[in-house]
Amino acid sequence: MSKQPKPAGVDSRKMSAELFSLTYGSLVAELLKDYEDTKQVNQQLDKIGFNMGIRLADDFLSKQATVPKCTDCRQMADVLAKTAIPAYLGVPATISSWGNSDREFSLVLENNPLTEFVELPPNLSTLHYSQVLAGAIRGGLEAVHIKVITTATENPSNTEIRVRFIEILKDNLPAGEE
Amino acid sequence: MSKQPKPAGVDSRKMSAELFSLTYGSLVAELLKDYEDTKQVNQQLDKIGFNMGIRLADDFLSKQATVPKCTDCRQMADVLAKTAIPAYLGVPATISSWGNSDREFSLVLENNPLTEFVELPPNLSTLHYSQVLAGAIRGGLEAVHIKVITTATENPSNTEIRVRFIEILKDNLPAGEE
Repeated sequence: MSKQPKPAGVDSRKMSAELFSLTYGSLVAELLKDYEDTKQVNQQLDKIGFNMGIRLADDFLSKQATVPKCTDCRQMADVLAKTAIPAYLGVPATISSWGNSDREFSLVLENNPLTEFVELPPNLSTLHYSQVLAGAIRGGLEAVHIKVITTATENPSNTEIRVRFIEILKDNLPAGEE
Repeated sequence: MSKQPKPAGVDSRKMSAELFSLTYGSLVAELLKDYEDTKQVNQQLDKIGFNMGIRLADDFLSKQATVPKCTDCRQMADVLAKTAIPAYLGVPATISSWGNSDREFSLVLENNPLTEFVELPPNLSTLHYSQVLAGAIRGGLEAVHIKVITTATENPSNTEIRVRFIEILKDNLPAGEE
């Protein structure tokens, strides 16, 4: 059984990606039963992820003494790809496809644990299966006053999370979305 | 949603218990929205766990070359507590409270990752929050022709999964429960 290197400073407990993948699959299956179309399911996954992201941001900041305060999107992308995503998913992401004057980028997961064990039928081609991750990134960033829009797309060999920077928020911390 | 296991040789990756805990919490919250009473939610969690257990049994057997064929409940409890549960949950279980001529026992989780981050309101006292684990043990054992009944109870400081041996099955492997 291989072990991923532990990201510096994070002392989280680890469990199997298989069990996580099956649990997440059960959540998506429940949502597909409950909502009429995949667009609504995508929205629900995004909201669920957002609320997780808010929670995980607290956890992340309490464990990471060394994360630099980001002053631009390239630093932000680096922290997400090299520290935050590996800390929670157990796999790194690669950064690609910069656009819109460095205000948009993609985080590419070659080995997304959510899609392990999963093969989506063709009639669910509009489902953003991993949107919970995109939502969690949105929530995690909003907890530190960075507003982004995020979308997760399944490509044949990877999962691509597109992150678009919107603005720095001046308000109080968000309490979560309903 | 159809799911197919990836080819053998995929390493068992690890990810954070926090993310798993939050994802599982979202699944339970969806089920609480969908079903009238906690008894039905407990049944759904048991079924979801059963189907996971069937899948995980394949995974477990393909990766563990050294698991002995169990000839009695004490050996079975040992494999569950010391090998199977740690492999997937990342924490060991202790075995206790043998009964019914060694045909019943409890697996006690002192650090259950499912209940991390979770505080159940008093009106959910009848919810077997971790029943998915009990269901997974039932499914995993049924995949190797051992029929048991399992119930997960939350105690103030631990989670107790009661396992009651019923019989050795002579039939074919189960395909899963609907």
